[in-house]
This record gives sequence, C-alpha cells and structure tokens, in this order.
Amino acid sequence: MQIRLDLALVHYPVYNKNKETIGAAVTNLDLHDIARAGRTYGVDTLYIVTPYQDQQKLVSEITAHWRTGHGAQYNSTRKDALSIVRLCSDLDELFALTTEKWKERPAILATSAKEHAITWSYDLTRKKLYSGERLLILFGTAWGLTLEVLNAVDGVLPPIKGQSEYNHLSVRSAAAIVLDRLLGSSD
Amino acid sequence: MQIRLDLALVHYPVYNKNKETIGAAVTNLDLHDIARAGRTYGVDTLYIVTPYQDQQKLVSEITAHWRTGHGAQYNSTRKDALSIVRLCSDLDELFALTTEKWKERPAILATSAKEHAITWSYDLTRKKLYSGERLLILFGTAWGLTLEVLNAVDGVLPPIKGQSEYNHLSVRSAAAIVLDRLLGSSD
Repeated sequence: MQIRLDLALVHYPVYNKNKETIGAAVTNLDLHDIARAGRTYGVDTLYIVTPYQDQQKLVSEITAHWRTGHGAQYNSTRKDALSIVRLCSDLDELFALTTEKWKERPAILATSAKEHAITWSYDLTRKKLYSGERLLILFGTAWGLTLEVLNAVDGVLPPIKGQSEYNHLSVRSAAAIVLDRLLGSSD
Repeated sequence: MQIRLDLALVHYPVYNKNKETIGAAVTNLDLHDIARAGRTYGVDTLYIVTPYQDQQKLVSEITAHWRTGHGAQYNSTRKDALSIVRLCSDLDELFALTTEKWKERPAILATSAKEHAITWSYDLTRKKLYSGERLLILFGTAWGLTLEVLNAVDGVLPPIKGQSEYNHLSVRSAAAIVLDRLLGSSD
C-alpha cells in the first residue's frame, strides 16, 4: 500500500502569543524531529514553509550538513531522515508543488489546538490515506496557524487531548502523535 | 479516575552510537517537550536522571527560569508544564523516590527501539494504568537505555513502528507517542 502523505511546517502566517500574525523563526530541532518521525511513518516530503531568505538559508545549511557534509558521515540515519525535507516560500507555492508532484491537488488538512467547524476525524483521515488518497497536513509553528489558513483548507484534524485541559504540546510532539494516530501499527 | 504515572528521562547509563555506556548531556528541549506532553496526558512527575553536578545545575536553572523567573511571566503555560519536573541522581534514587511517593514500589517499564523478551503491550499497560496501578516509564537519551537497565525492569514497551524500517525517533517524539498510545482519547 503506497501512502501519499506530505507534511508542511508553516512559519508564516502564524500567530504569536498576542494573536498577531507573524512569521516565526525556524527551529533546528523541528526539522530533525519531524523529519525523523516523517521518515518513520512513510511521509513523502516534509516542506518547510518560510518566506524569509535568512531562514531559508538556515534550513539549507542544516540539511546540507546532514545530507552531504560532516553530519552525513557522522550519522547516516539523520541523512536518511533529512532527505525528505524541502524548502518552500509560501502556501501558494506549497499547494502548487504538491499538486504538480501528485498530478492532482491533494486534500489539504490543518492542525489546531482548538476545535474547528470542518473536522476530519483521525479515523476518516486514516481510511483516506490507506485508500491511496493524497493528503497534505499543515502544522503551524509559534502559537499556531491563523484562522485565515484554517478556514481555507479542506478540513482540520481534532485537537490532541490527554487527561487534562492543558493543550500546549510542542509542534514536534503534535506532529509525532498525529503521524502515529494515522499510520502507527497497533500492538 | 486517577492516573498514577511517572516518566524518567535517563541520561546515565545509556549507549552512545558505538554501543559504549556513557552519560549523555541534558538537552533543553527534552525537558520542555516531554514536560508539556506529560502535563497534557496527566503524568505526575517527570524525573530527569543525571549523576553530573553541572548537568543538574543546568536542569535547575532551566526549571527555575520558567517556574519563578522571567519565563514564568512570559509564558505561564510553560511554568505549568515544567512544574512536573524533578531532578534525580541515579536509578536507585529514582526507584526510592517513586516508591516513597506512592507508598509502594511502582511497576517499572522501559522503552526501546528494539524488541525485548518481556514485553508489555500498549493495551495491557493502558489497562493497568486505568485500573489505578502505579507505573514508572524510563526513556533513554542518546542511543538508548543499556541492556543492563532493560534486563532489570518489569517490562519493556514494544518499539514504535510506522510504515518503514526506519526507527530513529527522537526521545521527545517517542515519549509523546507513548503517552498518546497509553492515555490519548480516541476520535
């Protein structure tokens, strides 16, 4: 069964803690952790979305170090994981790239720590993935994707809930959990 | 239902990439990510196990910054998460502390990227947690807990598998996924 899933880690447009729309800085460990989880669960591409040239340069330097530089010799499993990372300037470019790759527009899902109107359950989303449907899942950095983005996608995955009302997971943890819910093998 | 679960992030004894037993350095984001996930899923305490005084000082400085320093004003949700973190020198002290806290010795589980003889399935472990049993789950940093540790615990959780043979998740991602498998609410 071929899974056709892409992830995008979106640095703009996202909210800051005061709910203002900002562009967030790239975090080194986001790339590593989400690429490693993506590689584990069979994600095709992890797109890093940032419009800022200095941030794009940082992403390129990190991936070059681990793909072809000293890091590639030091840790080949990291090379393997970071091979799924691609840079992308904005959401329009992201949607164009994924549509071109799959020869059709993928269904676009977003993630959020809050409930939204058009929810796709994990169960429904899993079934679509296993039936071969192309999916692109957006994760927001900082305080999350803006409402404008959430309102423009095909659906939003339910917020991840544990045993408390506390719901401030890192985007690294949220991405790992979403992948496991959709593609993890059971006991 | 009261869940009685502790986590421990173990920095010694763990393997390095050459399978030598080492003490690993503390990573700032491990504390943040695993504390945030722990707080989300109702973990009682996240123990940071390291025998090194400089590393213990680092842990104390990080937690103090977010609990009572500038960080506590800047981001109260982080204060909340890091309130579950406790320092601990070694595994003997860890087992003594948790036994004292719960008034009985908890069942001790380890995590590993490989299969081990005495496996507790996620399903069994979840049932034990929901029946009120006290559990302590150990996570190894670097290249994972040593065989000596794995052979001394009550059971080992199955390795996390996705859609590939690649199994090099970060400990941050692994901890998030384990918590969600044990305590996440379904769709």
